[in-house]
This record gives sequence, C-alpha cells and structure tokens, in this order.
Amino acid sequence: MFHAGGYTATGIKDIVDAAGVPKGSFYNYFENKEAFGAEVIDAYFNRGLPGLQELLGNPDVPPLERLRTYFETRVHGIRSSGYAKGCMLGNLSLEMADHSTAMRERLAGHFRTWSALFETCIAQAQETGAIRNRLPPALLAQFLLNSWEGALLRMRVEKSDAPLNDFIEVVFGALLA
Amino acid sequence: MFHAGGYTATGIKDIVDAAGVPKGSFYNYFENKEAFGAEVIDAYFNRGLPGLQELLGNPDVPPLERLRTYFETRVHGIRSSGYAKGCMLGNLSLEMADHSTAMRERLAGHFRTWSALFETCIAQAQETGAIRNRLPPALLAQFLLNSWEGALLRMRVEKSDAPLNDFIEVVFGALLA
Repeated sequence: MFHAGGYTATGIKDIVDAAGVPKGSFYNYFENKEAFGAEVIDAYFNRGLPGLQELLGNPDVPPLERLRTYFETRVHGIRSSGYAKGCMLGNLSLEMADHSTAMRERLAGHFRTWSALFETCIAQAQETGAIRNRLPPALLAQFLLNSWEGALLRMRVEKSDAPLNDFIEVVFGALLA
Repeated sequence: MFHAGGYTATGIKDIVDAAGVPKGSFYNYFENKEAFGAEVIDAYFNRGLPGLQELLGNPDVPPLERLRTYFETRVHGIRSSGYAKGCMLGNLSLEMADHSTAMRERLAGHFRTWSALFETCIAQAQETGAIRNRLPPALLAQFLLNSWEGALLRMRVEKSDAPLNDFIEVVFGALLA
C-alpha cells in the first residue's frame, strides 16, 4: 500500500484492515507508523536482495553483461506492470526524507548496498577492458543508481518505457561502453 | 507547501489559512484541490522558465559551458538550502503520477520543455566538437534531465551534495566530454 499509494495516503486503519487484524495488535508490534514504515523499507529491499546478488555476482557471466541483463530484466518486468508504482525506495525518498530520520537512514543504507553491487561489476568490467571509461567505479555506480531512479521517476510521468530504454541506450551505448 | 510537505499532506484548509483567505474563496477559483495542484505545477515551472531560457540560450557563452553553469548554479543554490525539498516537479511526479491525470500531463509537458532546452545546447556543442558523444541530442537531453532528477532524489536521502557533484563529474567528465 505504501508502494502503490504512498506513505501519507495510507493510514494505519487501512493497513490493519488489509491485514485482517485488529488495530490494537499493530501497536503490539510497532511503536508507531514511522517505525512500521522503516520495517517496510527493510522488508522491501531485503526481499529483492538475494536475487540481485545472485544476478550481479554470477561468475559465469561477464560483468558488463550482468549489469545490462539486470536493467533489461527490470525494464521487462516494469513494462508488463503498466509503468505504475516505480521503485518504492525512490518514492519514499522523495516523500519522507525530510520528515523521518528513521526512514531516511534505512533508505540511505539500502541505496549504498545496492550501489556497491553495481560498483563490483563496473570495477571487474574495467579490469577486463569491457568498460573503457576510467572514472572511479564507485562514482560510476552511484551515478548509475541515481540515474536509474531518475528514469523510473520520468517513466511514471510519461507512462511509457521510453525513459528506461533511453537509460539503457545511453549507459550501455556510451557511458559504460 | 506542496514542495516542502507534499500534496497529500497539505490540506485545502492549510492552503487557505496560509494565504489568509476564507475556504469558500478557494472554490471560487479552483474546482478542487487537483485543479489547484495542476495550476501550482504550471506556476512553479513558469516562474523558473525565463531564467532557464536566458541561461541556456545565451549566445555569448559556448553551449557546453552554458549547460555546466546551469547545473553548477543549481547545486550552489541547493547547497545553501540544506538539501531539503529538491525539485517539486520530481516530488509530485512520484507522489501524483498514478493518481491524477491532470497533474501528470502538466508534469510531462514541462519536463519536455525543459529537456528541449538541454537538447539545443547539446546539439550545438556536438556541432562545435565540444561534445564528442554522437548519440542523438534528444536522447542525451532526456537522459540528462532524468539523471538530474535522480541525483536530486538521492540528495534528499543522503542530505549531502555528493549525488549532485557525482552527477556533474560523470556528465561533464565523461558523458558529454
């Protein structure tokens, strides 16, 4: 519900009703909505992390190809879902970063973990010569992640995969070529 | 208030109270909150547009330098404001794109106008040889805008200008070099 409708638009009552539990039990587990929001952020990221690690760390595939496959797979999945919702981490970043330190810090931590996985692939691809760009891999990885979040943002407005295709074309046709 | 707190978190009562007008007069001018939101998006973009056109269209400055100056000026302004709020167009894109067609269409239109200004600079800089990247200027311009929005998103979470500095370093040190 946070992903589809946003944090502010989703009340605790909506959450307990959807879960089919009485409102009182919410407070047995979570101090407040913000603490719940921080847990939701962790659950969302940690659910996707093993697949991300497996794909980006696969030693049987050249590192640049792993990165490209990752983004192409994401675009394919997003295309079939109608360009809605985007990335919950990105959505909550813009909605909550100025309003909840707890949520902001979880988001920052997960973005760093995510970026570090890109960084390893980029460093390996620079070593093999598949990427000629000599900028530091950590810098390129951060830029890549942020640009991906920006492409997802624009996709929400355009309701098309053009921003995602543009991302892939520029990143793999120029920046990391 | 939409920029600082978000659309959903800001009620019509908050708006009329801040403006010092009775609630009834809101409905003399706007059919509903959504129609007001669409007008706010136009006012926000149109307020900045003349300065943007002047800076990016300045024939006395080489085109690539205009682009770089634009982003550096933005980073300087954002740095002095504590990394809060970001870009209202980006914020409302993630919050409202799935919930208001009227607001989504205004956002899409302004992003296209903004991107077209980048495109002209990029095309001119390719002609003069300042940019060696031969990808279509429209593609690079869209990517640039989306990546900038992504850098602003990440800045909100990091509460630092590192994502903006990374953007400038990668864009002007590699992609548009």
